[in-house]
Amino acid sequence: MKTMKAWVLGNPGELALVDKPVPSLGPAEVLVRIDATAICATDLEVIAHGPPAVVGGEPPFNRNFTPGHEYMGTIVEVGPTVDEFAIGDRVAVEIHAGCGRCERCRQGMYTSCLNYGRNYGEFNKGHRANGFTTDGGFAQYAVNHVNTLVRVPETLTDEVATLIVTAGTTMYGYDVLGGLIAGESVVVTGAGPIGLSAVAVGKALGASPMILTDIVDSRLETGTRVGADIVINAGREPVVPAVERLTGGRGADLVFECSGAPNAVNEAIHMVKRGGRVCLGAFSNTPSLVDIGDVVTNNIFLYGIRGEGRSAVKRGASLMAQGRLDLSPLHTHTFGFDELPTAIRYFKDKVDGAIKVVIKPQEFRD
Amino acid sequence: MKTMKAWVLGNPGELALVDKPVPSLGPAEVLVRIDATAICATDLEVIAHGPPAVVGGEPPFNRNFTPGHEYMGTIVEVGPTVDEFAIGDRVAVEIHAGCGRCERCRQGMYTSCLNYGRNYGEFNKGHRANGFTTDGGFAQYAVNHVNTLVRVPETLTDEVATLIVTAGTTMYGYDVLGGLIAGESVVVTGAGPIGLSAVAVGKALGASPMILTDIVDSRLETGTRVGADIVINAGREPVVPAVERLTGGRGADLVFECSGAPNAVNEAIHMVKRGGRVCLGAFSNTPSLVDIGDVVTNNIFLYGIRGEGRSAVKRGASLMAQGRLDLSPLHTHTFGFDELPTAIRYFKDKVDGAIKVVIKPQEFRD
Amino acid sequence: MKTMKAWVLGNPGELALVDKPVPSLGPAEVLVRIDATAICATDLEVIAHGPPAVVGGEPPFNRNFTPGHEYMGTIVEVGPTVDEFAIGDRVAVEIHAGCGRCERCRQGMYTSCLNYGRNYGEFNKGHRANGFTTDGGFAQYAVNHVNTLVRVPETLTDEVATLIVTAGTTMYGYDVLGGLIAGESVVVTGAGPIGLSAVAVGKALGASPMILTDIVDSRLETGTRVGADIVINAGREPVVPAVERLTGGRGADLVFECSGAPNAVNEAIHMVKRGGRVCLGAFSNTPSLVDIGDVVTNNIFLYGIRGEGRSAVKRGASLMAQGRLDLSPLHTHTFGFDELPTAIRYFKDKVDGAIKVVIKPQEFRD
Amino acid sequence: MKTMKAWVLGNPGELALVDKPVPSLGPAEVLVRIDATAICATDLEVIAHGPPAVVGGEPPFNRNFTPGHEYMGTIVEVGPTVDEFAIGDRVAVEIHAGCGRCERCRQGMYTSCLNYGRNYGEFNKGHRANGFTTDGGFAQYAVNHVNTLVRVPETLTDEVATLIVTAGTTMYGYDVLGGLIAGESVVVTGAGPIGLSAVAVGKALGASPMILTDIVDSRLETGTRVGADIVINAGREPVVPAVERLTGGRGADLVFECSGAPNAVNEAIHMVKRGGRVCLGAFSNTPSLVDIGDVVTNNIFLYGIRGEGRSAVKRGASLMAQGRLDLSPLHTHTFGFDELPTAIRYFKDKVDGAIKVVIKPQEFRD
Repeated sequence: MKTMKAWVLGNPGELALVDKPVPSLGPAEVLVRIDATAICATDLEVIAHGPPAVVGGEPPFNRNFTPGHEYMGTIVEVGPTVDEFAIGDRVAVEIHAGCGRCERCRQGMYTSCLNYGRNYGEFNKGHRANGFTTDGGFAQYAVNHVNTLVRVPETLTDEVATLIVTAGTTMYGYDVLGGLIAGESVVVTGAGPIGLSAVAVGKALGASPMILTDIVDSRLETGTRVGADIVINAGREPVVPAVERLTGGRGADLVFECSGAPNAVNEAIHMVKRGGRVCLGAFSNTPSLVDIGDVVTNNIFLYGIRGEGRSAVKRGASLMAQGRLDLSPLHTHTFGFDELPTAIRYFKDKVDGAIKVVIKPQEFRD
Repeated sequence: MKTMKAWVLGNPGELALVDKPVPSLGPAEVLVRIDATAICATDLEVIAHGPPAVVGGEPPFNRNFTPGHEYMGTIVEVGPTVDEFAIGDRVAVEIHAGCGRCERCRQGMYTSCLNYGRNYGEFNKGHRANGFTTDGGFAQYAVNHVNTLVRVPETLTDEVATLIVTAGTTMYGYDVLGGLIAGESVVVTGAGPIGLSAVAVGKALGASPMILTDIVDSRLETGTRVGADIVINAGREPVVPAVERLTGGRGADLVFECSGAPNAVNEAIHMVKRGGRVCLGAFSNTPSLVDIGDVVTNNIFLYGIRGEGRSAVKRGASLMAQGRLDLSPLHTHTFGFDELPTAIRYFKDKVDGAIKVVIKPQEFRD
Repeated sequence: MKTMKAWVLGNPGELALVDKPVPSLGPAEVLVRIDATAICATDLEVIAHGPPAVVGGEPPFNRNFTPGHEYMGTIVEVGPTVDEFAIGDRVAVEIHAGCGRCERCRQGMYTSCLNYGRNYGEFNKGHRANGFTTDGGFAQYAVNHVNTLVRVPETLTDEVATLIVTAGTTMYGYDVLGGLIAGESVVVTGAGPIGLSAVAVGKALGASPMILTDIVDSRLETGTRVGADIVINAGREPVVPAVERLTGGRGADLVFECSGAPNAVNEAIHMVKRGGRVCLGAFSNTPSLVDIGDVVTNNIFLYGIRGEGRSAVKRGASLMAQGRLDLSPLHTHTFGFDELPTAIRYFKDKVDGAIKVVIKPQEFRD
Repeated sequence: MKTMKAWVLGNPGELALVDKPVPSLGPAEVLVRIDATAICATDLEVIAHGPPAVVGGEPPFNRNFTPGHEYMGTIVEVGPTVDEFAIGDRVAVEIHAGCGRCERCRQGMYTSCLNYGRNYGEFNKGHRANGFTTDGGFAQYAVNHVNTLVRVPETLTDEVATLIVTAGTTMYGYDVLGGLIAGESVVVTGAGPIGLSAVAVGKALGASPMILTDIVDSRLETGTRVGADIVINAGREPVVPAVERLTGGRGADLVFECSGAPNAVNEAIHMVKRGGRVCLGAFSNTPSLVDIGDVVTNNIFLYGIRGEGRSAVKRGASLMAQGRLDLSPLHTHTFGFDELPTAIRYFKDKVDGAIKVVIKPQEFRD
């Protein structure tokens, strides 16, 4: 049996680098040699608390579980019945392979699979969410269902290619917001990786003006580099009246909330135009006070999004391949595979202006 | 100049019965002789505080303003260019005639008109919301734009015909929830007139099971009469686990929140299925604590609705005309025109089991 | 190995009753003991020519293939990982189990699976369309993927339960037409089983008026029994001016073409309202002349539908279980299992007013 | 009374340059001084035969009617109640101002207004379609409803700004096709002005690959300049197998038919992927043979589009203002106002490679 290096989760918060068998393949699966993995805020959540919103599964601690879900690599083996991809294909990934048999998967909502996490035991439904409920990308190899793969063009570096899944999440957000963004005014709240991706993707789809809010000037500057027309430092200027002023008193057509700040949803509601729409792509761990009266009397629609559904990753990859979407300013640091703890620290503490921090599973630095 | 009897609003909370000129007509308008007007909770709000969510207009107090918006009657005069309706037509009404020239009206979202209330002065945009910003139905006659009229069949009594607009509101809710309700499980929270209408309309569209929650047994009994398959008294049984139990642990496909209770939105989120949708048709006057994390991780969509857009009133009237929707159990009391204060008291205090209370503007009781 | 009786296809047009092994189950599959199977016009097509629109598969002749796709029965065995259904469940079926891995299945369009018919050989994608590309319902037992099953209430007879899939096809049509049919005027062209189902389902969803056209009076009479408000004998009255007259010169909101007549699409275009929508649920074997200029200048949308997607069968079954949809007038004849050739003749030649003809695979008459 | 120069239509095909009163304004209207007007194929149709698809109006011949609908200019006067625009605003136009009171306008489908052309007499519904049923752009001034105006940035020349309405038509097409075009494969058939605009707009929205077909190499070259990834000369290579080859045998996700060629719809159906969608933006004057069986069995949706609905012109203008959409290669020739007959000849006969030919109503050349 071949082995590989992989990081596994011990007790909450504890990661260890171990040797682990290279996984074997079932029908419709391929083996990806992982060339780069980015760190996402949700990884920190999984490592500390386990996957959010999973009901009925066991916690991932001390079960030899490998987190990490934003990765790309090269196909080195294909499982039975696979002719959709071939050995040597360079690929990025979607996180969710739905079970394919629940009501939600049947209607195309595979990121809301009702069998989420049921990939074990007698009634194994075959759901996979790599890095959440099945082994993920902080390893040298990973199994992926063919449903979760998109081809990556040679023009993108490994590091930038890890951002395809980030693009997919925000592309999915724009899809649920109606899809035709050209000429719509958009406010993105929060300039983390998701928010910056929302700026870049929204701009690639023709949003105008694209307004970005955050409290860190350097992040706002990156926002300008990826396409924000106007930035607002919420620490210096209240954002609701600022947006009102910038939109002739009417509010923005669309708001994409990416901050998870406690008052963010309420502010989103107050800065969106009557009859407008709000996408919720982030959240805090405590309930938020929300002015429901404003939602009702202004006919506002709110869309919570999980993951990157409706083939959004494919769309994001296509824009990047065409040179219409450049997320390279989000990538700030690369580390070797054995430097994951350092990489996590850089990401978490925003050391040296870190935004997206990547490890290279085939490379060792020490 | 002909005159008519009309109730007008003095100081907040004060109504007076006066003589007022019968209004004259502009292009695309008709004069309706009002035969019946129902009282709605929003009327109480308008009388006490002015219309909700109107920005930039003057308050309606001491301006000879007539409230009331759930009415029906007979066309007695048609304005210039009108051939859509004729004198003698029996009609019920939509509340909102959009301005027809703002962005929202242009896209068919006339209940979210951006010129809401701008029907005065040099830049009069022609918006009308009878009983909110233009004179309404607590009078013997009212002006209506042809856009706001639907024909009423002879098979419906005047009293039941006033419920067409109530049907329209919930029909609009089901429209934004996706429209094809057949076979979906639905929870309606709150058994007021809107909630009961949501039960009846949802059932007419094929919802199954239709679950209704409230804290008043008599209202739940009325719910059963209009189509609820299952009723839950929320005062005796927590509704979230009850719905979970009734739906095999998955939650309901759709939740229609009609109670305005402080915790209602949060409960709606927790009782809807992953990937499900919630319509918000009611609200309280204070912000609600909402578990945004649940909304995001379960990909839940929330739809605030204002009024009865997308020709929903026409759809509701059609179902009633076909005998597929019977809201007659909602009508409990009828009063003469001069008894409006008594009628309001019955409605407000639920005297004698009052649900929908109607006055007849052509009838005087004393 | 257990055996069962089954009809198999020899040369085009030749059916033989044979003994065949009872099929075995894979993951996510169940074994259905078939209690009733209806005959559909598409069966005749399959028997004579092979499945329509299948690219790349071998023809079904002389391969021991069993046609038949409108059936119901009782689960007698469940395959690995199945807990969605249990032995003893009474079920009706959808035809299509998509492959679950192509782009269309991934977006919920499983009846348009891009791997249609690829359920054999090295790259078996697992697609099933029972009675088309995998063994169907003219047998005592059939394998079904759990995706394709809906529960059947005890209130429905076996014969009527076979009509659930027919209801599903038209329910899917109404779904693609926009879903909210209440109050819309609808013309159904063609009073075969699909057309009659379109009448009944459309009426159950609130269409008004529901207009049915055909050239056979007895079929139009059945149409009236299942909900048509107005019937037009196209042999006696040209339908386009008739619909124009019945709709105040505007045309119908929606047209559901179920006749497959050569001029039917063109007539549908001319009888639909400007900005209206047409569902195409039938077709002839030769191209039709279509007035594309009318389609473009009147902003008409045309929707071809294959099968019964978007969980339409579940919706239809729910309406039938609720007593809101009664297709029993469509069922006219029942035969024993060994009488299939006679049953087909009755169906094909409309012997004795036959509409839906059913065989009972567990019953032998001779 | 002020007068202006205007071209008016005499007998079919006859245009004359006359003096005409500068029109006066009603509520919600502005007076546009026309700075540039492009010639469209539909203009030739109107001049020769009258407007397509108008029912019930009088023909436009010998009634002092001015055609022309693709124009831009500067607001020189505003009518009563107008504060949406101001004197001096530089604007391009939508063609259709719906009546605002029919069912279609009420649902936002103003290009399918049911009162199309009813802007005269006792029951004047106020519909305007400048250049079709009301005076258009081959004049020095025109009246426009505020609904039909979009601002034009200074970065665009007058000539290029006339192409905003062309962009709007194809933007509307992409809207009805689903809106989120990024990553979809698209075939545009026909490289006239609409087809070339479809290429450029589709590419701006992220289509990939964008395939263009035509029979004229120079047009295909222009297609490449505005964004086509692949061009096919249909005179040299059959397009259906070419598209099949280019899309791995699956067909294109979307087809936008802009040629009006007799066999174009049928070819579109055969080159679109199973479950795909086709937009019909052109047509010939005779019915087309269409393989309806292919439409039904492959679940294909066909969308006829009229005009530039759903605020598509605003979206197109925004992309042009942002520099994300460059239609300048479509503009080939400019003439003075009195040279309209020459301009029409250049356009019609494609003299000197003419694509879009513009006249400047404020300029006289002789």
